[in-house]
Amino acid sequence: MDFKSYLKNRCLLVDKALDKLMPPSEEYPSVINQAMRYSVFAGGKRIRPLLVIMTAETLGYKAERVMPTACALELIHTYSLIHDDLPCMDDDDFRRGQPTNHKVFGENMAVLGGDGLLTLAFELIAGNGGVKGVRQKNVLKSLQLIAEGAGTHGMVGGQVVDIISENKKISEPVLQYIHTHKTGALIRASILSGALLCDASKKEYLALKSYGEHIGLVFQIVDDILNVIGDEKKLGKAVGTDAVRKKVTYPALYGLEQSRAEVKLLCEKAKLALKVFGKKAPALNALVDYLEKREA
Amino acid sequence: MDFKSYLKNRCLLVDKALDKLMPPSEEYPSVINQAMRYSVFAGGKRIRPLLVIMTAETLGYKAERVMPTACALELIHTYSLIHDDLPCMDDDDFRRGQPTNHKVFGENMAVLGGDGLLTLAFELIAGNGGVKGVRQKNVLKSLQLIAEGAGTHGMVGGQVVDIISENKKISEPVLQYIHTHKTGALIRASILSGALLCDASKKEYLALKSYGEHIGLVFQIVDDILNVIGDEKKLGKAVGTDAVRKKVTYPALYGLEQSRAEVKLLCEKAKLALKVFGKKAPALNALVDYLEKREA
Repeated sequence: MDFKSYLKNRCLLVDKALDKLMPPSEEYPSVINQAMRYSVFAGGKRIRPLLVIMTAETLGYKAERVMPTACALELIHTYSLIHDDLPCMDDDDFRRGQPTNHKVFGENMAVLGGDGLLTLAFELIAGNGGVKGVRQKNVLKSLQLIAEGAGTHGMVGGQVVDIISENKKISEPVLQYIHTHKTGALIRASILSGALLCDASKKEYLALKSYGEHIGLVFQIVDDILNVIGDEKKLGKAVGTDAVRKKVTYPALYGLEQSRAEVKLLCEKAKLALKVFGKKAPALNALVDYLEKREA
Repeated sequence: MDFKSYLKNRCLLVDKALDKLMPPSEEYPSVINQAMRYSVFAGGKRIRPLLVIMTAETLGYKAERVMPTACALELIHTYSLIHDDLPCMDDDDFRRGQPTNHKVFGENMAVLGGDGLLTLAFELIAGNGGVKGVRQKNVLKSLQLIAEGAGTHGMVGGQVVDIISENKKISEPVLQYIHTHKTGALIRASILSGALLCDASKKEYLALKSYGEHIGLVFQIVDDILNVIGDEKKLGKAVGTDAVRKKVTYPALYGLEQSRAEVKLLCEKAKLALKVFGKKAPALNALVDYLEKREA
């Protein structure tokens, strides 16, 4: 498959749906809609929505079946970036090469914009129950999974541990916690929500779960590596910041070489998990290489 | 009915359920659970959960049927208070007589604690689908209503307009917007979620909607009045702050006397809406007087 044009096409679908599902810029009070749209349309890679869509396609369904949930996951991801960038958190001035949300709209609108995105996300997920053929029971289940992946047992919990571990001696269990929660939990939830909405069999569900766990770790370790050796221009943000903040990262604990070896191993395991789908999972397979080799 | 002991009893039920449904304080990472519990158990009046429960009881069901959703509404209310108190928002040091969340746990944990509460709220609402007899379809509908009441079309939108209108000339449409959105939207959603989860008939649903709209306004206008003439000790927070910030309030636009007259009129209309339930709505009726005469 031509993965590059596949990605481009699906990203366009997601962007179109996001534009339709979010309140228009000019709607009163416009500043909050502008603030939310600013960060949502700031050049994200749409990894989470793509995962939902690829999972649906692997199970024989079209993107439309899962689109509201796919978009919701991008909104949750975006809200987390806006709040993470706040002065009281990571205090970042740039993200994807552009000024961070609070730099443009002020801290109060950045807080409220994040809150608005998170709330809209759950409204969209519930709205996925209106898509023909989707079981209401599975919508509720996927919403619970996503909330778990986003909240204190997932992403928020990972962020908390990340913050309280700064400037402390690095320990393996803490690194493990941060890696499985901060990014991994929501990536896992993206894949599993696609599986639920498309009535995956138990065997398929477990395979996708294993796949999700492995690529979630790949994603986080590559993120850590890029913060050490990445190109600021390609990344659109400063590198070396983890070291300055004495963050608990994979390269900091194991060094670059072992981090890269771990990524390679995890990628192999992710692909192995897809074996059950035979040739029906070309996109999920290609995504593994894409995540391994990404430079931004 | 002995409304005072009724309130006490139902508040106890809500507190017990909240304690059970929230992650325990000691769970890792404990600081976030402590931060969330600090604000949830800081002496709130539990108006929103009470409304869900009273609505359920009016329709012939017990509190247990709607308890996860009732608790979720208290979590949403609490998250909004934590974020509103942040230095970049209202910058309040005290709430209900105690230091605000960020004063105790730091701004970063206050942001994340609010995020965690909002996320947990939607997980709980979805979990209400697991209660015997409740229709999954109605759970999804009530979740959508609550998200709408909490997001940029509701509470968040009201907060945004409240902020952008500070220090500006007061206009009637702006006041109207703030009043119906900032507090009213979530109060309305509390009642309607109870109505949906308890299979209200169309006639009952519309009556409850009208009731909710009126008491939502009562709540906000009384809040504004108390900020002018309230007792700081009873309120547990500073008064006169709206005038200092030149906030758009009912007393500021119409004066105290007309504000009180409006409250009285709205209370009468709220009670009128309950006529359809005959003698089956003693709690919802008594609540109107309680909200009219509250001093905190």
